[in-house]
Formats: sequence, C-alpha cells, structure tokens
Amino acid sequence: MKNETSNTAILLIHCPDAKGLVAAVTDFLHNNNGNIISLDQHVDQAERRFFMRVEWDLEGFAIPEEKIDDYFGTLIGQKYRMEWQLHFTSRRPRFAIFVSKMSHCLYDILQRCMSAEWKVEVPIIISNHDNLRYIAERFDMPFEVIAIDKDNKAEQEQRQIELLQQLDVDFIVLARYMQILSDNFVAAFPNRIINIHHSFLPAFKGAKPYHSAFNRGVKVIGATSHYVTADLDEGPIIEQDVRRISHKDSVPDLIRIGKDLEKVVLARAIWLEIQHKILPYKNKTIVFD
Amino acid sequence: MKNETSNTAILLIHCPDAKGLVAAVTDFLHNNNGNIISLDQHVDQAERRFFMRVEWDLEGFAIPEEKIDDYFGTLIGQKYRMEWQLHFTSRRPRFAIFVSKMSHCLYDILQRCMSAEWKVEVPIIISNHDNLRYIAERFDMPFEVIAIDKDNKAEQEQRQIELLQQLDVDFIVLARYMQILSDNFVAAFPNRIINIHHSFLPAFKGAKPYHSAFNRGVKVIGATSHYVTADLDEGPIIEQDVRRISHKDSVPDLIRIGKDLEKVVLARAIWLEIQHKILPYKNKTIVFD
Amino acid sequence: MKNETSNTAILLIHCPDAKGLVAAVTDFLHNNNGNIISLDQHVDQAERRFFMRVEWDLEGFAIPEEKIDDYFGTLIGQKYRMEWQLHFTSRRPRFAIFVSKMSHCLYDILQRCMSAEWKVEVPIIISNHDNLRYIAERFDMPFEVIAIDKDNKAEQEQRQIELLQQLDVDFIVLARYMQILSDNFVAAFPNRIINIHHSFLPAFKGAKPYHSAFNRGVKVIGATSHYVTADLDEGPIIEQDVRRISHKDSVPDLIRIGKDLEKVVLARAIWLEIQHKILPYKNKTIVFD
Amino acid sequence: MKNETSNTAILLIHCPDAKGLVAAVTDFLHNNNGNIISLDQHVDQAERRFFMRVEWDLEGFAIPEEKIDDYFGTLIGQKYRMEWQLHFTSRRPRFAIFVSKMSHCLYDILQRCMSAEWKVEVPIIISNHDNLRYIAERFDMPFEVIAIDKDNKAEQEQRQIELLQQLDVDFIVLARYMQILSDNFVAAFPNRIINIHHSFLPAFKGAKPYHSAFNRGVKVIGATSHYVTADLDEGPIIEQDVRRISHKDSVPDLIRIGKDLEKVVLARAIWLEIQHKILPYKNKTIVFD
Repeated sequence: MKNETSNTAILLIHCPDAKGLVAAVTDFLHNNNGNIISLDQHVDQAERRFFMRVEWDLEGFAIPEEKIDDYFGTLIGQKYRMEWQLHFTSRRPRFAIFVSKMSHCLYDILQRCMSAEWKVEVPIIISNHDNLRYIAERFDMPFEVIAIDKDNKAEQEQRQIELLQQLDVDFIVLARYMQILSDNFVAAFPNRIINIHHSFLPAFKGAKPYHSAFNRGVKVIGATSHYVTADLDEGPIIEQDVRRISHKDSVPDLIRIGKDLEKVVLARAIWLEIQHKILPYKNKTIVFD
Repeated sequence: MKNETSNTAILLIHCPDAKGLVAAVTDFLHNNNGNIISLDQHVDQAERRFFMRVEWDLEGFAIPEEKIDDYFGTLIGQKYRMEWQLHFTSRRPRFAIFVSKMSHCLYDILQRCMSAEWKVEVPIIISNHDNLRYIAERFDMPFEVIAIDKDNKAEQEQRQIELLQQLDVDFIVLARYMQILSDNFVAAFPNRIINIHHSFLPAFKGAKPYHSAFNRGVKVIGATSHYVTADLDEGPIIEQDVRRISHKDSVPDLIRIGKDLEKVVLARAIWLEIQHKILPYKNKTIVFD
Repeated sequence: MKNETSNTAILLIHCPDAKGLVAAVTDFLHNNNGNIISLDQHVDQAERRFFMRVEWDLEGFAIPEEKIDDYFGTLIGQKYRMEWQLHFTSRRPRFAIFVSKMSHCLYDILQRCMSAEWKVEVPIIISNHDNLRYIAERFDMPFEVIAIDKDNKAEQEQRQIELLQQLDVDFIVLARYMQILSDNFVAAFPNRIINIHHSFLPAFKGAKPYHSAFNRGVKVIGATSHYVTADLDEGPIIEQDVRRISHKDSVPDLIRIGKDLEKVVLARAIWLEIQHKILPYKNKTIVFD
Repeated sequence: MKNETSNTAILLIHCPDAKGLVAAVTDFLHNNNGNIISLDQHVDQAERRFFMRVEWDLEGFAIPEEKIDDYFGTLIGQKYRMEWQLHFTSRRPRFAIFVSKMSHCLYDILQRCMSAEWKVEVPIIISNHDNLRYIAERFDMPFEVIAIDKDNKAEQEQRQIELLQQLDVDFIVLARYMQILSDNFVAAFPNRIINIHHSFLPAFKGAKPYHSAFNRGVKVIGATSHYVTADLDEGPIIEQDVRRISHKDSVPDLIRIGKDLEKVVLARAIWLEIQHKILPYKNKTIVFD
C-alpha cells in the first residue's frame, strides 16, 4: 500500500514478449529519477505476451505529468509495440452505480465511500426503478431513474451513455442491475463496466442462479465479478469467491448467504479497479494484487 | 427455513444425558398435536450432557402458548433436570447496537434491518462517541451517546443497563464498540452480549490484533464473534472466518480486509441468535445451523 | 464420534412428511431399550419429504440384530411408507477402487486404510491400465487389470460386475478412473459408485476441465465428489471444495493444485459413506455430517 | 510455470531500499543477454528494505554459470549492500524427511516424489522411532532410526547433523517429527528446516493443539508451516490454511480433519521451497508465489 499523500503514476502495459522489456521500462523510469514503488510483471507463455504494472513516485520525476505519455510512447512504447494505460493517483477514480431493487451492494459501496475506505467519486446512481431512491436521498447522492422496457431500450441507453460521458466517469458498476445491456452500450465502455453475477461462473449463467444451484444440489455457492462484454456472463473474470451450503439451505437461504458473497466480491473488484491493478486481455484478466 | 408467515415455537434444551430424552420431548409434542418442523440434538460425550433444539408449528397445538412453559416443565423438564428456553417466532427479536467510531458493522446491520433480510427491532444505538450519529439520523434510528471515562464508568454503565431494560432488549450487539465492559455490566446480560473481535481467537486477544498479525507475519487473518463474559475475549465462540493475506499487505490493508470479515462474521452470529440456534454451555456454543 | 469399540445400528430413512415421524421412530427405539447416540432429521419442504438418520447402541437393545429390519418394517416403516437402510457398525465397509494412471487419490486412500484412519476393507483395485500395479504391490493389495476398448467394453464390464459381486463390495470408488461407465454398469450399483470430478460441477463437465478453467480465466478451481448416474457428471453431489488461483497459474499448475483438492474431496465423500451419513434422493444428497 | 526442460537461474535478493534497484538488476541481465522469465519485487516500507526474485533463461547468457555469483556480487550486489542467493534449476533440490509415528505427511511427500509431481531427491528419512520403517521399505528409501532421549540428545543430534551434511541436503522437512530440536541443531541449518505445526499459529503453540482447540470451542482449525528457529513455533511462517469445524467434532475428529490440512500445507511450503520462492527476513517470509 502506497503512502496515500504522495502523488504517483501507474503504467499498465502489455505487448508481445521480447528480451529486455523490464530493463527498458525500469531504465526509462530510473534515468528520469523515478523511484519505483511497486512492479509486477507476467508473461503468458501460451500467448507469448508480456504484461506489466509499475508504479513510481512523481516527486522529483524529470518528466512533467502531462508529457509522460508522449515521452513513454516515443521512447519505449512504440519500439516494443506496447499498448498501455497511464494513471495518476492524484485523480480520484469516478464511477457510476447502476442498481435495480436490491440494496445490499449499494449500501456496501456507499458505506465504503462515506467512511473514506475508498477515495473515489460517485457522481450518479442510475436505476431502472424508483425503489432505492430513499437510500440515495439518505446519502445525499444524485439518483436518476431511467426506466427501460423493450420499446424504449435503445433510446434510454442513449440517455445513459450521454449522462455518463457528461459526468466523465471512468467506469460503471452494476450493483445487481437487473437489465441486460445492449451491445451498443457495452461497446461505449469497453472493459469499463464491472458486473457482479450471483454464481461462480461459468456455472449458472443467466437468470435465477440460486434456484439453479438449489436444484442441482451443489455444496458450495459463489459470486463472480467480471467486465461486461457483448456475451452475457462471459466477460473477463476479475474476482470470485464461494461459501459452503448444505441440504438444509432453501432457495431463500441461498439468496441470503449469496448477498454477502456478492457485495464482498464486487467490492474487491472495485478496489482492484480503483488502484488500476487489473489488466484485461482477451477474455481474461491479469490481476496484479 | 420455516415458512415466514406461520407461528412456531422453539425449545432449546440441555440436561444430563439419559435414555429416552428425544422420545420424551417428541412424544410431548406429538401427543399434543404439534408438528415438528426441525429437530437437532447433540450429546457431548465428555460432559455427558444432552443438547436439543426443536421447533414446531403452533397451528393446532393443544396447549395454549402461555401455558407451554409450565406444562413442559411439569411433564418433562423437571423429570430430566433440564434447563430450557422457550421462544416464539411471533415475537420479533429486539437488540441494541453499541458502536464507537467505525461504521462498517453498523451500516451492514442497518442495511439488513431496512431491507427486511432480518425481521427484528433495534430500539436503540448506543455509543461512547458522537461520530456516528449522522448514520443513525439517516436511518431515523434513536442514537444515544453515553460517554465513558475512568471516573464515570460505573455510573454510565448503570444508565446503559437501565435504558436496555426499559427497552426490553433480548440481546446486545457490540459492533466494534471500543470499551471494555465491566463484570457488573456483563453479569446483567449473561450470554446476551455478542461481540466481534478482529482476529481468529484465541490468537491476538486484546488491542490492535491487526498490528500483531502483521508483526507475526501470519498468512491468514480472521474475525471471531463470541458472547461476552467477564474474561476479555474468552467468551463462548459463535462464529469465525478467515481470509488469506500475503507479505504485500500492510497494516492498513489488514484493517481494510478485516472489516469485511468482521461485518460478515458478526452478521452470521446475529442471524443465528435471532433464530434461537445457539446454545451456550460453559465456555462453548452448540450452534444448530 | 461414537465410541469405536461399541456396536451400534444406523437407520437411514426417508418417507412422505407427516406428523409424528420422529416420535414414532424414537419411541420404537426407546421402548426397546435403545440408547440414541445421534439423531438428525431434515424435511424438504418443496418435496414434502422427511429424511432421518438415527444411530443407537445395540448394547441391551431388546430386538436381536437379525430381526430389527423386520420389526422396524412391520411396526413403523410400512405404516409411514418409509424407505430405509439398516447398517451395523460391526460390519467393516468394503469397497473396490478403480484407477487409471494417476496415483494421488490411490495413495491417499491406501494411506488412510493402512494407518487405520479408516476401518474398512478394500478387497480389490481394478484398473484399465497396468501402470499403477507397483503401488498395489507395495501395499500388498490385489490389483486386477481389466483393459477396455470400444469392442470389449460390455464384456469387460460384465467381468467387473461379477468380480465386484463375488467380493461383496458395498460400494465402488472411482479414484480418477478415466473410463465412462455404461448405463448397464451404473444400474448394477445404484448410488453405490462414488466419483471424483476435477471441477466444481456443474461447471466444466466432461473431459479436460482444468484446460477449460484455464481458458475461461476463472479465479477459483474446484473438485466434486458425486454418485455416478447414467448422466455423465450429473449425479447427486456429495462434497465439493475449491481453491483460489491466479493468472500466474498455468494448466500444469491447475492440475497440480487440483490434485490436492481431488484427493481430499474424494476422501471426505468416502468418509461420509463409510459412516452411512449420506442419503441420496433424486439428484441430490442429504449429508448428515 | 517455467518450461521444465530449460535450465534457468534464480536470484533471491534483499537489501536496503534505494532508487534504481530493479533497473540495476534487469540491466545486468539484459546486457548479458539474459531473458527474464519472471520477476517479483517487494518493498517493506516499515523496514525500508527491498526484496526481489528474478528468474532468467541461461540459454545464451553471456556469463558462465560458475562465474555469475562473482560477477553479480562485484557489479551489483556489493554496491547496493545486497544479500543474495543464486540457484540453478538444473540442480534437483535435496531434502531429508524427519518423522516419528504418524504416516500421513510422509506418504503424501513420497507420493509426490514418486509420481514426479516434484523433481527432487530425498536421500534419507530419519526417525526417532522404528514404526514407519515399513513405509520407507515399500518405497525403497533409506530409513535411519536415531532414537533420542534426554541423556543422548546432544550426541544423537550430532550424528544427524553429520549425516545430513554428508548427504549434502539443501533443507530438512519435519513431517510431524515429535522432538524439539536443540538450538545447536537449528543453528546448523538456519532457515533450512521446515516444520508443520498442527494449529493456525500463533494460537495453540506447543503440544496437543487439537485438544486445546477443542477445549476453547473454536469454529475453525488450522495448520501452519514455518521455518524452525530457536524459539518453539515462533519461526517465520511460510503457509497456513484452515477448515471449519463444529460442536459435533470431537478431538479425534479434529485430529482426522487436521491431518488433511497438515499434509497439504506442508506440501505447499515444500513446493515453494523447491522453487526458491521463499525469502525469509527476520521473523517473516516474503513468498513470491
């Protein structure tokens, strides 16, 4: 965990594997008087692809913040055909929360924001129902109902997209949002929508996973947070966890037990995201935790 | 899980082990037209002691509610030297919450009450600090500051006891309440105060367990909910859980990770309590889950 | 855990739910001077079906062992349309082990037998390959190769069935046996074949689950022990467990990590079986643990 | 997981934290045509100490194997006041196993060696009792009884030390060896003795932890593998894991459940050790997994 008061930069990189990649990046930082705070790298042998996350202190760094991206690209990135993201911890991550009628994930997220466990900004809560407005009001949060039916879906999603772009959110959290997003919406936020699915994927995709789990007679249930892609419940998995159940547990028991999994697993995924520790690649994630 | 709408009775029993105990209890219920919904029993071989929880439907039961305790005692309980508790699910469990400055457990409990995950009554939140009053206000909950220092402790605890008795609470939840209760206070609520301790007891008793865990270099941390007794962190354990950590986790990381354990472990203990599924005996618990 | 030296009887019962079932069974035992050691019951509300496991001491029990089944049926079982199994702990459970080429589960099982952790008899190890014969020889265990190809399958399975019936095995353990059993074979041992599948079912059914798990990018892998039915990997689940993995784990890593899950999960299922703690019903199990 | 057939080198480094450490090491490797396979680093902020593990392919590396240590020390190590270990994967790790009377860890280790899950050499099994000789014989392993009583301890430990030095073992595994090692013995193998303790340390140090766990009424039990130091059960922890128990579990149940934890936790620690992934520092470990 970095010192919270300092300003640091983070590079998330991936590129074809090659000799000298770590040396090239660390030399770039070292030669410009950058002090590395943490460095993680990974090589996917099957894909022959290199992944790296490096965080360094900007105190005394020779290159001004606004030019780092340009310099890095010119000197290192292009040479190795890298794709990279550059983040500054001085910017508070901003995300929108989408909800429907269940409150457990929403409360959990808001508590973390309020208690400053997370240093983030949540400029909007969007819902397809009015039910949870009272919670937003209690927390003095903007709450926008954008009701969706099969006739208005395209148009309402367009409203959502515009609102989100206006508010300059970095990513979107689906906190048990019970609407399937269109491909068009998903395409507007590639690997920037985090969902919580109430099963250990790939088991029990789609609707009513606790009912399916009960009917199958499993002895563990789970929850999965993942980036949303055009394929339902098929996006890159960020985090999963499970809990034991028994024949004594009814469907309502599974739902109750599952809520605790859902909120904790979703919170862990958001925590990783706001620290820029996740690198999605194809249908998987590299999680530098 | 019982049908929520029906009215049922629950007997929690323990007594010296003997032949025919289950038959005696089930005959008593059956002969009076009681339909058993669930039955669990346990014999502690070392203690030669019998434990039982039985729940039955009151619909059509021959003995009126207010006479069950008397009849059971006369016909069965005294004969076998039983100690027993009788509960009716028609009574909503009532508990007080004690907090200090940390909000995660409090939010978590209130969310469960508000969303009707738990059907309970919380007539009061008591704190030794004013910090969390804003949360109580958001939830329209009574919040009472009873500040405690070494000079006024006896007197302030007396105020607490009177308030709690007035409000007729069944039990008390210490949701990260950072004050050691006196023996006198504990004696007023025997096995009726549920605490959450932020370590897997008996490791790291007392103050600053996450610092101790960090210094010892453990690879898992935990949380423990237990009944409070006169001996600090030595009361009967109700529930425990753990999570893996690594050398990368600093003390603030352990605190953050630990919060999720604390709130979930405490909530599980409360859930067991409100279902009357815990039978404390000596320094242990029988948990009929 | 019962006293190992005493002789006890176990009844596993299921029947349509009705009033007075527990009283009827416990009266039967009590009236015949049977001391109940443990009793568990469960009602499946959806199926309206009652399940029970009761174990009692045969010391001083009024009905001779060989007549218990008859008396119980006449006095209780038929009246309530029960299906039941009666077991005596004086009989050591006997099971056959089926293996192919991987040794981890086999060693694990044999170690438990040799060290008397389990009090069982293993009259035969059957394999479709010769590879693990040296292990059987080290443990002085009979090892029979019954090679199977698509032409001889029916005939070779018939040999297996005859051998198993001759040896009077109570059940069969597939300890990573890499052959799909025919419906005919399965029908000869209904709910008496325990398999270990190397994934948390229902995810990753069929062949190469670790490769599938790797390709899907899951963050936990699991293992499942279940009774074998005619539908591949669809039988009643007995036990499951999981372990966290990360992007750093290759397929060989998953296989290595998974082996530890497989052997432990399989061993737990066998342990439940030899204590007669599993009651399969339809495609699920009641596990009285 | 590296390609098993290639020959690689591993550096485990720690030193006071400073700017440019990663760049210095990666430049050294890159400039000499070394292809980095994996790199992990960690900075302990409290200790201001830098830790690193780097593995690279020796194919085409400019410096001959036998001179790497010298060159690295001269060019990098001394400059930064590093302490380091250099390992080659071409050398099979060699370790001795110490046992007493319980066989579960021994079988588990031997199965992993026999099945080539681990590519290691075990030149000797040492015991203070003759009980497990039959296992060694089954596996054709050398087994040496070195009986220890209070009068001969110093002398017998001297025999052990000489034997172990003669056999050139890299480390020692105490697979439930029920003898406390003297400070003198421990000093001969600093951070080279791996023990398995049957509790989640620091809870239940010393003898009979399962009895203590039972008496305390805990709801989880655990196992801990750690390096042995002069202070009993106080050495740097390598790995821990736990499993849930309930009031139904007797002491023999805890022992049985615990065995599965012990063997798996010990095996994970050995696996980390043979990959040179553990860096002990003071009373903790950095585990680069």
